[in-house]
Amino acid sequence: MQRTYIKDLKEFVGKETSISGYVDVRRNQGKMVFFEFRDRTGKIQGVVLPNNKEALESSKEIRSEWVVEIIGIVNRRPEKNIQAGNGKMNGDIELEIKHIKVIGIAKELPFEKDSEINIDTYLDYLPLTLRSQKHTAVFKVQAVIAKAFRDFFTNEGFTEFQAPKLIGDDAEGGANSFDVTYFKHVAHLAQSPQLYKQIMVGVFERVFSVGNVYRAEKHSTTRHLNEYTSLDMEMGYIKDHHDVMNAENQFLQYLEDVLRISCVDDFTLLGATIPTVPKEIPKLTLREAQTLITKDTGKDCTNEPDLEPEHERWLCKYAEKNFNSDFIFVTNFPTAKRPFYTYRDENDPTYTKGFDLLFRGVEITTGAQRIHNYDDLVSSMQEKKLDPEKFKYYLQAFKYGMPPHGGLGLGLERITAKLLCLENIKEATLFPRDINRIDNLLSE
Amino acid sequence: MQRTYIKDLKEFVGKETSISGYVDVRRNQGKMVFFEFRDRTGKIQGVVLPNNKEALESSKEIRSEWVVEIIGIVNRRPEKNIQAGNGKMNGDIELEIKHIKVIGIAKELPFEKDSEINIDTYLDYLPLTLRSQKHTAVFKVQAVIAKAFRDFFTNEGFTEFQAPKLIGDDAEGGANSFDVTYFKHVAHLAQSPQLYKQIMVGVFERVFSVGNVYRAEKHSTTRHLNEYTSLDMEMGYIKDHHDVMNAENQFLQYLEDVLRISCVDDFTLLGATIPTVPKEIPKLTLREAQTLITKDTGKDCTNEPDLEPEHERWLCKYAEKNFNSDFIFVTNFPTAKRPFYTYRDENDPTYTKGFDLLFRGVEITTGAQRIHNYDDLVSSMQEKKLDPEKFKYYLQAFKYGMPPHGGLGLGLERITAKLLCLENIKEATLFPRDINRIDNLLSE
Repeated sequence: MQRTYIKDLKEFVGKETSISGYVDVRRNQGKMVFFEFRDRTGKIQGVVLPNNKEALESSKEIRSEWVVEIIGIVNRRPEKNIQAGNGKMNGDIELEIKHIKVIGIAKELPFEKDSEINIDTYLDYLPLTLRSQKHTAVFKVQAVIAKAFRDFFTNEGFTEFQAPKLIGDDAEGGANSFDVTYFKHVAHLAQSPQLYKQIMVGVFERVFSVGNVYRAEKHSTTRHLNEYTSLDMEMGYIKDHHDVMNAENQFLQYLEDVLRISCVDDFTLLGATIPTVPKEIPKLTLREAQTLITKDTGKDCTNEPDLEPEHERWLCKYAEKNFNSDFIFVTNFPTAKRPFYTYRDENDPTYTKGFDLLFRGVEITTGAQRIHNYDDLVSSMQEKKLDPEKFKYYLQAFKYGMPPHGGLGLGLERITAKLLCLENIKEATLFPRDINRIDNLLSE
Repeated sequence: MQRTYIKDLKEFVGKETSISGYVDVRRNQGKMVFFEFRDRTGKIQGVVLPNNKEALESSKEIRSEWVVEIIGIVNRRPEKNIQAGNGKMNGDIELEIKHIKVIGIAKELPFEKDSEINIDTYLDYLPLTLRSQKHTAVFKVQAVIAKAFRDFFTNEGFTEFQAPKLIGDDAEGGANSFDVTYFKHVAHLAQSPQLYKQIMVGVFERVFSVGNVYRAEKHSTTRHLNEYTSLDMEMGYIKDHHDVMNAENQFLQYLEDVLRISCVDDFTLLGATIPTVPKEIPKLTLREAQTLITKDTGKDCTNEPDLEPEHERWLCKYAEKNFNSDFIFVTNFPTAKRPFYTYRDENDPTYTKGFDLLFRGVEITTGAQRIHNYDDLVSSMQEKKLDPEKFKYYLQAFKYGMPPHGGLGLGLERITAKLLCLENIKEATLFPRDINRIDNLLSE
């Protein structure tokens, strides 16, 4: 018999049909057995009546996480029971089980389903714990965000490209890259697709890439990951960094629309709110932002080269209060604090045309206009004590002509966590890696 | 003045407008200067007339790969010149340059544009050589293939997930994985998302993933890559491996449709043909295939555990001749030659429910039904001399219940190369890595 998805059972009232799925819960009640079944489309209650000896017998051993095929009749629930299921999918129907067939056996679970577990237990048992409705919702939303990013920029004439993650010289230096034994050489894992996406601007003008990046930071915090997914774009023929910010603003409006169409239930389940993205996200320069913060707090921060976490939170509250916006751009960070490829403000070259986007208290994007002139780029490397010889491959793009361009990177796990108000970024990462953990705990 | 894309210039005949783009070619002719400009939408000829002293002066230094903004008037070309440009985009119009502004300077090129260069020079200068129309077409088609894969499976109810590439124990063994120095530990780069996509079947039933995978093979050939992009899918609640093959068959039909809509010009440029995908791609078991080959060649190969490259080519010709198909599935490979997780044929457990898909002479997909019963999976590991303890994390998915499932992996670069009839897979890989090369040649 053809499989019916659980969400479609309401069309089969009074009829016999078949479902396949997991046993979510099993409950004995007198001489009857009740089950809750789930498949990827929803949940349904099933019942084995006392007179169905065969089904009672075959369901004897069946517990949570067994996988079954059911043949049964879809019935309206008794009136007195409808209220209990009210509002839920299939709250007014149940499946009277005629025949039950086991297609996947589960051993006894290590803890009761939906019991409170700490984050380490959650991570130790991901192949099981990810199956909960809450965690499934998180990664469904994450898939929607990644798709929205690609769809929006594809529609804007951007071309997707596959950025390499295995790189040669760790030319930007710093202790933040992982070493890879590459035959007789030492290679590295890329910290971003930055250099490649700039190269690709010379090829396609507008490009985007979705892929893993790596940071060898020795953290185990609620904010850091050693492997994460970066949504990256880069666009040519811009006037300045405002073109990049405006493109991101439009993407976020598109994302809001998509989330309102396809993820309302997931946000409700997680107790989160889909943010309203203003037509024009407010923008402040770093110095403007710091002047406002100093005025309010009395502590002078106007000479700081960057924002402290508490400043980010302050600015988000400020944007919410004054512009009714969950988002705020901060621009013109000092040249000293930004990478060598960041374009400098013509009016004051000690500041860049770089920006951060803050959302619900934290930075979710870093972007900028980039230097496109070969000689300027080489000088900038030298000022930063970097060796242009090590960047020879990348520098070809500029030696052989590049348009003005800029771009940004967006951490997929971080934006997922902030949108869904998850406290720990590891809850927004399918299989998070940190200093102590790759899947299970690393051995000493 | 607003930028007009080159493909839209035909709507501006007799009018002044502005374009931005690269100088593709510069040519002096008497007192006039001719340029060919390109942007991401196409090409146009531009001309500076002898009386435009200012533009002649400012175009003096401009050569190939300089980036410019042009203000000019779109004119019909003189009738005698139309034939030369016939059939090409903008073959009947040209831009009379009024004003030319340099926005990106290029140094002298290392070789003449579009000159014949060998593959090593091509790879040494990718930031420049990728800009040719031919190579741009390859990676445009590649982006379309990746998008088609995601779109098709999303529409079929599959959920995208981000697979980790950094893995702990190299549990499957073999010398084919790269070591990563992970803090105080040795981690590895994943050879496939296999174990994770199976885990995810327990969460979403149907999943796909697009991402890099790594093979530490000591090759530098026209067929191998050390880092490539894998299109992976896995689906639950299947009857057997035929469900997986049928899903791939339908995807390929969808891909054909998409290519016919958006990539005809690219295929023409590259001299390649979009394959017609039959409604039912022919299927043979390995033994059936070997019997046919033996009959034809006289050389008995019916006891071989796998297909030789010449057998793959023979089978593709056979499928073309007898079924008018560029594709053929070969199924039921011996258990000894397939990974531990491959489902065994109930009728003869020395054979698996695994398959390969051959296309234009080579294998482009490996897939299978997988073992979903915990005890069977542990036994299979033991038979293969693998230590189940090392797979403890993965095994949880099976310990706590899994439906029958199967899936496949498809190398994005390989399918791009075969579709476009490129001889070397490195031409279908943006920044290929091999034993000698990461971007530039690796130092000794």
